[in-house]
Amino acid sequence: MQQKLWLEDLLVGQEFVSATHRLTADEIKEFAGRYDPQPFHMDEAAARGTMFGGLAASGWHTAAITMRLSVQSFPLASGIIGSGGELTWTKPVRPGDALQVKSEILEIIPSQSKPDRGMVIVKLTTTNQNGEIVQTFSPKLVVFRRPGT
Amino acid sequence: MQQKLWLEDLLVGQEFVSATHRLTADEIKEFAGRYDPQPFHMDEAAARGTMFGGLAASGWHTAAITMRLSVQSFPLASGIIGSGGELTWTKPVRPGDALQVKSEILEIIPSQSKPDRGMVIVKLTTTNQNGEIVQTFSPKLVVFRRPGT
Repeated sequence: MQQKLWLEDLLVGQEFVSATHRLTADEIKEFAGRYDPQPFHMDEAAARGTMFGGLAASGWHTAAITMRLSVQSFPLASGIIGSGGELTWTKPVRPGDALQVKSEILEIIPSQSKPDRGMVIVKLTTTNQNGEIVQTFSPKLVVFRRPGT
Repeated sequence: MQQKLWLEDLLVGQEFVSATHRLTADEIKEFAGRYDPQPFHMDEAAARGTMFGGLAASGWHTAAITMRLSVQSFPLASGIIGSGGELTWTKPVRPGDALQVKSEILEIIPSQSKPDRGMVIVKLTTTNQNGEIVQTFSPKLVVFRRPGT
Protein backbone atom coordinates (compact mmCIF):
# COMPACT_ATOMS: atom_id res chain seq x y z
CA MET A 1 0.00 0.00 0.00
CA GLN A 2 1.38 3.32 -1.14
CA GLN A 3 1.78 6.00 1.52
CA LYS A 4 -0.96 8.61 1.33
CA LEU A 5 0.17 12.16 0.68
CA TRP A 6 -0.99 15.46 2.21
CA LEU A 7 -0.32 18.99 0.97
CA GLU A 8 3.00 19.28 2.82
CA ASP A 9 4.26 16.04 1.24
CA LEU A 10 3.98 17.42 -2.31
CA LEU A 11 6.78 19.06 -4.32
CA VAL A 12 6.67 20.92 -7.61
CA GLY A 13 7.98 18.58 -10.30
CA GLN A 14 6.91 15.36 -8.53
CA GLU A 15 5.54 12.75 -10.94
CA PHE A 16 3.33 9.73 -10.43
CA VAL A 17 3.00 7.15 -13.19
CA SER A 18 -0.01 4.85 -13.40
CA ALA A 19 -0.51 1.27 -14.45
CA THR A 20 -1.74 0.72 -18.01
CA HIS A 21 -5.24 -0.05 -19.20
CA ARG A 22 -5.80 -1.74 -22.57
CA LEU A 23 -9.11 -0.92 -24.27
CA THR A 24 -11.13 -3.42 -26.26
CA ALA A 25 -13.52 -2.60 -29.10
CA ASP A 26 -16.40 -3.94 -26.96
CA GLU A 27 -15.51 -1.61 -24.10
CA ILE A 28 -15.32 1.38 -26.48
CA LYS A 29 -18.75 0.56 -27.92
CA GLU A 30 -20.34 -0.07 -24.53
CA PHE A 31 -19.21 3.29 -23.12
CA ALA A 32 -20.32 5.06 -26.30
CA GLY A 33 -23.70 3.36 -26.22
CA ARG A 34 -24.28 4.78 -22.75
CA TYR A 35 -22.73 8.21 -23.02
CA ASP A 36 -21.62 9.17 -26.54
CA PRO A 37 -23.81 7.35 -29.06
CA GLN A 38 -22.19 8.43 -32.32
CA PRO A 39 -21.32 6.13 -35.26
CA PHE A 40 -17.53 6.62 -35.07
CA HIS A 41 -17.56 5.36 -31.45
CA MET A 42 -20.00 2.47 -31.97
CA ASP A 43 -19.57 0.74 -35.29
CA GLU A 44 -16.38 -0.12 -37.24
CA ALA A 45 -17.99 0.03 -40.67
CA ALA A 46 -19.75 3.34 -40.08
CA ALA A 47 -16.58 4.76 -38.49
CA ARG A 48 -14.54 4.12 -41.65
CA GLY A 49 -16.54 6.75 -43.53
CA THR A 50 -15.91 9.48 -40.92
CA MET A 51 -12.94 11.73 -40.20
CA PHE A 52 -11.74 9.14 -37.66
CA GLY A 53 -11.29 6.56 -40.44
CA GLY A 54 -12.13 3.74 -38.01
CA LEU A 55 -13.50 3.01 -34.56
CA ALA A 56 -12.26 5.48 -31.93
CA ALA A 57 -13.04 5.78 -28.23
CA SER A 58 -15.16 8.67 -26.97
CA GLY A 59 -12.94 11.38 -25.50
CA TRP A 60 -15.05 11.07 -22.35
CA HIS A 61 -14.14 7.40 -22.17
CA THR A 62 -10.44 8.33 -22.35
CA ALA A 63 -11.06 10.95 -19.66
CA ALA A 64 -12.88 8.46 -17.41
CA ILE A 65 -10.11 5.85 -17.74
CA THR A 66 -7.55 8.58 -17.08
CA MET A 67 -9.36 9.42 -13.85
CA ARG A 68 -9.34 5.81 -12.64
CA LEU A 69 -5.65 5.39 -13.46
CA SER A 70 -4.91 8.67 -11.62
CA VAL A 71 -6.92 7.69 -8.54
CA GLN A 72 -4.97 4.43 -8.41
CA SER A 73 -1.52 6.01 -8.81
CA PHE A 74 -1.59 9.55 -7.37
CA PRO A 75 -2.16 8.84 -3.67
CA LEU A 76 -3.62 12.05 -2.24
CA ALA A 77 -4.89 11.35 1.28
CA SER A 78 -7.91 13.63 0.90
CA GLY A 79 -8.68 12.38 -2.61
CA ILE A 80 -8.44 13.87 -6.07
CA ILE A 81 -10.93 16.75 -5.96
CA GLY A 82 -10.89 19.27 -8.80
CA SER A 83 -13.00 22.13 -10.07
CA GLY A 84 -12.09 21.55 -13.70
CA GLY A 85 -9.36 22.58 -16.11
CA GLU A 86 -8.29 22.59 -19.73
CA LEU A 87 -8.94 19.25 -21.45
CA THR A 88 -7.35 18.40 -24.80
CA TRP A 89 -7.67 15.33 -26.98
CA THR A 90 -4.69 15.12 -29.28
CA LYS A 91 -5.04 11.76 -30.99
CA PRO A 92 -7.79 9.14 -31.40
CA VAL A 93 -7.76 6.19 -29.01
CA ARG A 94 -8.21 2.90 -30.86
CA PRO A 95 -9.22 -0.63 -29.85
CA GLY A 96 -6.15 -2.36 -28.39
CA ASP A 97 -4.49 0.86 -27.24
CA ALA A 98 -2.90 0.62 -23.77
CA LEU A 99 -3.33 3.88 -21.89
CA GLN A 100 -1.08 5.15 -19.10
CA VAL A 101 -1.25 8.39 -17.12
CA LYS A 102 1.50 10.57 -15.70
CA SER A 103 0.41 13.03 -12.99
CA GLU A 104 2.86 15.90 -12.58
CA ILE A 105 2.74 18.64 -9.96
CA LEU A 106 3.08 22.07 -11.59
CA GLU A 107 2.24 24.49 -8.80
CA ILE A 108 1.38 24.45 -5.07
CA ILE A 109 -0.55 27.41 -3.67
CA PRO A 110 -1.35 27.38 0.08
CA SER A 111 -4.75 28.91 0.83
CA GLN A 112 -4.63 32.37 2.39
CA SER A 113 -8.05 32.07 4.01
CA LYS A 114 -8.21 28.34 4.88
CA PRO A 115 -5.03 27.17 6.63
CA ASP A 116 -6.00 23.49 6.39
CA ARG A 117 -5.68 23.29 2.60
CA GLY A 118 -4.10 24.51 -0.61
CA MET A 119 -4.60 24.51 -4.34
CA VAL A 120 -2.39 22.27 -6.43
CA ILE A 121 -2.16 22.58 -10.20
CA VAL A 122 -1.33 19.29 -11.84
CA LYS A 123 -0.96 18.07 -15.39
CA LEU A 124 -2.33 14.66 -16.27
CA THR A 125 -0.85 13.34 -19.51
CA THR A 126 -2.38 10.22 -21.01
CA THR A 127 -0.28 8.29 -23.52
CA ASN A 128 -0.77 5.18 -25.62
CA GLN A 129 1.54 2.17 -25.97
CA ASN A 130 3.69 4.09 -28.49
CA GLY A 131 4.26 6.96 -26.08
CA GLU A 132 1.98 9.21 -28.14
CA ILE A 133 -0.08 11.70 -26.12
CA VAL A 134 -3.81 11.10 -26.52
CA GLN A 135 -5.10 13.49 -23.83
CA THR A 136 -3.90 16.19 -21.48
CA PHE A 137 -5.85 17.66 -18.57
CA SER A 138 -4.62 20.39 -16.24
CA PRO A 139 -6.92 20.60 -13.25
CA LYS A 140 -6.69 22.67 -10.10
CA LEU A 141 -7.03 20.36 -7.12
CA VAL A 142 -7.99 21.08 -3.53
CA VAL A 143 -5.46 19.28 -1.30
CA PHE A 144 -5.62 19.16 2.49
CA ARG A 145 -2.83 19.37 5.06
CA ARG A 146 -2.23 16.44 7.41
CA PRO A 147 -4.85 16.78 10.18
CA GLY A 148 -3.61 17.90 13.58
CA THR A 149 -0.46 19.61 12.29
CA MET B 1 -36.81 13.32 -36.24
CA GLN B 2 -34.98 16.61 -35.96
CA GLN B 3 -33.40 17.98 -39.13
CA LYS B 4 -29.65 17.44 -39.22
CA LEU B 5 -27.54 20.56 -39.43
CA TRP B 6 -24.42 21.33 -41.46
CA LEU B 7 -21.98 24.21 -41.04
CA GLU B 8 -23.99 26.59 -43.23
CA ASP B 9 -27.14 25.95 -41.16
CA LEU B 10 -25.56 27.28 -37.95
CA LEU B 11 -25.82 30.83 -36.60
CA VAL B 12 -23.99 32.52 -33.74
CA GLY B 13 -26.34 32.67 -30.77
CA GLN B 14 -28.36 29.57 -31.74
CA GLU B 15 -29.28 27.43 -28.74
CA PHE B 16 -30.30 23.79 -28.41
CA VAL B 17 -31.84 22.56 -25.18
CA SER B 18 -31.74 18.88 -24.21
CA ALA B 19 -34.10 16.58 -22.41
CA THR B 20 -33.41 16.00 -18.71
CA HIS B 21 -31.70 13.06 -17.05
CA ARG B 22 -32.34 12.31 -13.37
CA LEU B 23 -29.47 10.55 -11.56
CA THR B 24 -29.97 7.89 -8.93
CA ALA B 25 -27.56 7.09 -6.09
CA ASP B 26 -27.01 3.64 -7.62
CA GLU B 27 -26.03 5.14 -10.96
CA ILE B 28 -23.60 7.56 -9.26
CA LYS B 29 -21.97 4.69 -7.36
CA GLU B 30 -21.79 2.41 -10.38
CA PHE B 31 -20.02 5.01 -12.55
CA ALA B 32 -17.65 5.85 -9.70
CA GLY B 33 -16.86 2.19 -9.11
CA ARG B 34 -15.73 1.90 -12.71
CA TYR B 35 -14.01 5.21 -13.30
CA ASP B 36 -13.63 7.35 -10.17
CA PRO B 37 -13.44 5.06 -7.12
CA GLN B 38 -13.28 7.61 -4.32
CA PRO B 39 -15.32 7.51 -1.07
CA PHE B 40 -17.32 10.72 -1.73
CA HIS B 41 -18.64 9.21 -5.00
CA MET B 42 -19.32 5.70 -3.67
CA ASP B 43 -20.60 5.66 -0.12
CA GLU B 44 -23.07 8.00 1.61
CA ALA B 45 -21.62 7.55 5.12
CA ALA B 46 -18.00 8.03 4.03
CA ALA B 47 -19.02 11.03 1.90
CA ARG B 48 -20.49 12.86 4.90
CA GLY B 49 -17.01 13.25 6.41
CA THR B 50 -15.55 14.85 3.25
CA MET B 51 -15.74 18.35 1.82
CA PHE B 52 -18.74 17.24 -0.27
CA GLY B 53 -20.75 16.59 2.92
CA GLY B 54 -22.64 13.76 1.21
CA LEU B 55 -22.68 11.57 -1.89
CA ALA B 56 -21.79 13.50 -5.07
CA ALA B 57 -21.42 12.32 -8.67
CA SER B 58 -17.99 12.15 -10.27
CA GLY B 59 -17.41 15.19 -12.45
CA TRP B 60 -16.64 12.75 -15.26
CA HIS B 61 -20.08 11.22 -14.80
CA THR B 62 -21.66 14.67 -15.16
CA ALA B 63 -19.49 15.22 -18.26
CA ALA B 64 -20.51 11.87 -19.77
CA ILE B 65 -24.22 12.52 -19.19
CA THR B 66 -23.77 16.01 -20.64
CA MET B 67 -22.31 14.45 -23.78
CA ARG B 68 -25.22 12.07 -24.22
CA LEU B 69 -27.79 14.84 -23.71
CA SER B 70 -25.88 17.00 -26.24
CA VAL B 71 -25.69 14.26 -28.85
CA GLN B 72 -29.46 13.77 -28.52
CA SER B 73 -30.33 17.48 -28.77
CA PHE B 74 -27.69 19.25 -30.87
CA PRO B 75 -28.25 17.64 -34.29
CA LEU B 76 -24.99 18.15 -36.18
CA ALA B 77 -25.09 16.04 -39.35
CA SER B 78 -21.40 15.14 -39.13
CA GLY B 79 -21.53 14.48 -35.38
CA ILE B 80 -20.18 16.27 -32.32
CA ILE B 81 -16.42 16.03 -32.77
CA GLY B 82 -14.22 18.13 -30.53
CA SER B 83 -10.56 18.47 -29.66
CA GLY B 84 -11.21 19.54 -26.07
CA GLY B 85 -11.86 22.77 -24.20
CA GLU B 86 -12.18 24.35 -20.79
CA LEU B 87 -14.19 22.20 -18.39
CA THR B 88 -15.53 23.59 -15.10
CA TRP B 89 -17.50 21.93 -12.33
CA THR B 90 -19.30 24.61 -10.34
CA LYS B 91 -21.53 22.65 -7.96
CA PRO B 92 -21.79 19.03 -6.76
CA VAL B 93 -24.34 16.81 -8.51
CA ARG B 94 -26.44 14.86 -5.99
CA PRO B 95 -28.65 11.77 -6.16
CA GLY B 96 -32.04 12.82 -7.54
CA ASP B 97 -30.69 15.80 -9.49
CA ALA B 98 -32.19 16.20 -12.95
CA LEU B 99 -29.58 17.44 -15.41
CA GLN B 100 -30.26 19.39 -18.60
CA VAL B 101 -27.84 20.78 -21.17
CA LYS B 102 -28.00 23.94 -23.25
CA SER B 103 -25.67 24.01 -26.28
CA GLU B 104 -25.02 27.56 -27.51
CA ILE B 105 -23.07 28.58 -30.61
CA LEU B 106 -20.47 31.22 -29.75
CA GLU B 107 -18.34 31.45 -32.88
CA ILE B 108 -18.21 30.01 -36.41
CA ILE B 109 -14.85 30.00 -38.18
CA PRO B 110 -14.72 28.62 -41.75
CA SER B 111 -11.50 26.72 -42.45
CA GLN B 112 -9.04 28.59 -44.69
CA SER B 113 -7.31 25.43 -45.87
CA LYS B 114 -10.17 22.90 -45.95
CA PRO B 115 -13.25 24.33 -47.72
CA ASP B 116 -15.47 21.41 -46.67
CA ARG B 117 -15.46 22.31 -42.97
CA GLY B 118 -15.17 24.90 -40.23
CA MET B 119 -14.50 25.25 -36.54
CA VAL B 120 -17.41 26.05 -34.26
CA ILE B 121 -16.93 27.15 -30.68
CA VAL B 122 -19.86 26.17 -28.49
CA LYS B 123 -20.67 26.45 -24.83
CA LEU B 124 -22.39 23.52 -23.15
CA THR B 125 -24.02 24.54 -19.89
CA THR B 126 -25.33 21.78 -17.64
CA THR B 127 -27.91 22.77 -15.01
CA ASN B 128 -29.81 20.94 -12.29
CA GLN B 129 -33.56 21.02 -11.57
CA ASN B 130 -33.16 24.33 -9.71
CA GLY B 131 -31.50 26.00 -12.68
CA GLU B 132 -28.14 25.99 -10.92
CA ILE B 133 -25.14 25.50 -13.18
CA VAL B 134 -23.22 22.30 -12.31
CA GLN B 135 -20.82 22.21 -15.27
CA THR B 136 -19.71 24.28 -18.23
CA PHE B 137 -17.65 23.05 -21.17
CA SER B 138 -16.52 25.17 -24.11
CA PRO B 139 -15.21 22.90 -26.85
CA LYS B 140 -14.05 23.68 -30.35
CA LEU B 141 -15.93 21.44 -32.76
CA VAL B 142 -15.14 20.42 -36.31
CA VAL B 143 -18.32 20.85 -38.36
CA PHE B 144 -18.67 19.90 -42.03
CA ARG B 145 -20.53 21.66 -44.84
CA ARG B 146 -23.40 19.91 -46.60
CA PRO B 147 -21.75 17.54 -49.11
CA GLY B 148 -21.98 18.50 -52.76
CA THR B 149 -22.54 22.20 -52.20
